[in-house]
Amino acid sequence: MKRVPANRKFIVPGFKFAGISAGIKKSGDRDLALIYSESPAIAAGMFTTNRIKAAPVKLAIENITSQKAQAIIINSGNANACTGKKGIKDAREVNKKTAEELGIPSELVYVSSTGIIGKPLPVEKINNAVPGLVDKLSPSSLRQVASAMMTTDTFAKMSSRKLKIGRKRGTITGIAKGAGMICPNMATMLCFIVTDIAINRQALDSALREAVTSSFNRLIIDNDMSTNDTVMILANGNLQNRPITKRSAEFNIFKNALNEITYDLARMIAEDGEGATKLIEVIVKGALTEADAEKIALAIANSMLVKTAIYGQDPNWGRIVAAIGYSGVEVNENTLDISLNKIKLVRKGLGTNKEKVARKTLSKKNIIITVDLGIGKETAKALTCDLTEGYIKINAHYST
Amino acid sequence: MKRVPANRKFIVPGFKFAGISAGIKKSGDRDLALIYSESPAIAAGMFTTNRIKAAPVKLAIENITSQKAQAIIINSGNANACTGKKGIKDAREVNKKTAEELGIPSELVYVSSTGIIGKPLPVEKINNAVPGLVDKLSPSSLRQVASAMMTTDTFAKMSSRKLKIGRKRGTITGIAKGAGMICPNMATMLCFIVTDIAINRQALDSALREAVTSSFNRLIIDNDMSTNDTVMILANGNLQNRPITKRSAEFNIFKNALNEITYDLARMIAEDGEGATKLIEVIVKGALTEADAEKIALAIANSMLVKTAIYGQDPNWGRIVAAIGYSGVEVNENTLDISLNKIKLVRKGLGTNKEKVARKTLSKKNIIITVDLGIGKETAKALTCDLTEGYIKINAHYST
Repeated sequence: MKRVPANRKFIVPGFKFAGISAGIKKSGDRDLALIYSESPAIAAGMFTTNRIKAAPVKLAIENITSQKAQAIIINSGNANACTGKKGIKDAREVNKKTAEELGIPSELVYVSSTGIIGKPLPVEKINNAVPGLVDKLSPSSLRQVASAMMTTDTFAKMSSRKLKIGRKRGTITGIAKGAGMICPNMATMLCFIVTDIAINRQALDSALREAVTSSFNRLIIDNDMSTNDTVMILANGNLQNRPITKRSAEFNIFKNALNEITYDLARMIAEDGEGATKLIEVIVKGALTEADAEKIALAIANSMLVKTAIYGQDPNWGRIVAAIGYSGVEVNENTLDISLNKIKLVRKGLGTNKEKVARKTLSKKNIIITVDLGIGKETAKALTCDLTEGYIKINAHYST
Repeated sequence: MKRVPANRKFIVPGFKFAGISAGIKKSGDRDLALIYSESPAIAAGMFTTNRIKAAPVKLAIENITSQKAQAIIINSGNANACTGKKGIKDAREVNKKTAEELGIPSELVYVSSTGIIGKPLPVEKINNAVPGLVDKLSPSSLRQVASAMMTTDTFAKMSSRKLKIGRKRGTITGIAKGAGMICPNMATMLCFIVTDIAINRQALDSALREAVTSSFNRLIIDNDMSTNDTVMILANGNLQNRPITKRSAEFNIFKNALNEITYDLARMIAEDGEGATKLIEVIVKGALTEADAEKIALAIANSMLVKTAIYGQDPNWGRIVAAIGYSGVEVNENTLDISLNKIKLVRKGLGTNKEKVARKTLSKKNIIITVDLGIGKETAKALTCDLTEGYIKINAHYST
């Protein structure tokens, strides 16, 4: 399960990274990270739709109106949420210190926090560590950032694509942290993407929205939504290509690569769901509309009974049928097919008595649930993981 | 935890009950039950809103248009859902056999099933057992019915009230089965209520709807909704009071008693949630509308993170705040108070640092989460239980 991709492929010209321990986490693990672009980058961001937002998220939503960014400082171990006016002041202090040390305007610095809610941010610890963090910046240290963001994650999540833009080769690289508290509408707690490709703000924003819609917003671990969820993308134009617009030929190439990266990261988050032993992809076909297909895919991905059955390697398709039925979509029982991996368990609404062979396929690590409604042509996918005793153990004792 | 209420208090004049083993469950436990009224009763019912309904539910929805019932035959161990045309035929055969043995019209007989989905109903076993079941009918055997309905329940759920109707004393008694697959909009799989009080159909139907709204529809175990959920009430008029109408003085007395009974049963279902160690009541106050209060109460009751924290006796109020925030209701962080039992953990949106004493109160079996939004005067309650390894164990291996 250990992922050791070459660090080199994650290098994005003009960006530097560092991750260290500032002593926020009791464990002494890395808990403070910095992403830095040598020049101001075009930036786009999407943030939690939770009505209660963490202090740094409130600031980031303000900042992003400038459409620019040059640095992101990220801490784990403390979410700086439900911390009132002091929380805002604390986030501003971290912002200011980081801007000073980097010698850049504070409007170009974003603060991002993840961890326990309702405790004051240890500003002194963080600000004392900022100079050392800045000193360690290096183009090949993205993995340090990915690991410093982790809370209950068990591995660092990184994905990268090289793409031809005219005669040049650009790079898009993303990192994410996830695991628990994941549900649609900003399914990741934190995801940061950087690219050296020049692209205008409108195109960048639109590509990000499309990518998030079909990846993080189709990902469910436990249907709880965090106060801190953030996805940001920074494009520093280091490649010096003619900036991509929504009308460029390269816009589709850029979007496809970004879609692949966010789907990769969402898949890793599902795989690394708290306590998960299996990655589950739900594919719903034959729907009248994509929205119908999405509703059903999410209902199945969100069903605790489906997720425990997959964990128990139990081909209990009745639970899948029940989830389809309560999704709110008008379906026809008599045209319904359901498969687990390639084993067709339900044909035209009736069981095929293939439980024995289905039980065998459920011993695999990757499970694909395919539902064909048989009433239309639209499709949607969702990602989730199984639900195990491990999830309970992790979450019953997190704040202690 | 064992409940051994006197059987006598559950007696309702004019009703008889029986529960036996028909060999549907491998365990040899009771799995077939009969509720019988000596005379045709006025009946009202509410059924699952799942688009995919079990065969017996389809028949019951048809039958209830007659507004009458005289017998309900209930089996556990098999839901007769996703069984196609054969399922309907099978339910009709059980209906017919029961009507014959009781010597009453088949339109007055309801069939109800709970258990595994997608397997053919063992009609022969059931119909062979019906004569013996009818022979065993007795006024004091309601507990047999309650226990024969059980699937993963650990105790039989019964509640009763005596009430003065004019100079007479009438009785309302209800039984329920629940445990898993419970979510709002018909939160119980099966609930049957009988009364000897005469009441007209309109009043009975309206009282039932009101009672279900504030009890079973405010109950969450795992947010999955069954294909079989059913609540029925039968009023046989044995008391010979002047039939209650919506304009009678006694209508409120009747409604209050019925509300208490359904809330009692909902509470027992939460207490007996699969793997549960704690009963959780969520009270939301200070909302602008009751609908807002309900949304927030259900979001909290549905949060896996809140439920695992309560299990771990961890006063992680940040998770409660997160659930309030994603409920979709416009709230003000700065007027928000949160208590666990009587310990105020959050005042005006900020932590009070009472985690230590809160941890202690969480060792109790009954936990009340009180949220005061501080922006209005409306209130709603929800019921749930904690989420434990036990839930996972039970549900990972149910169909085997």
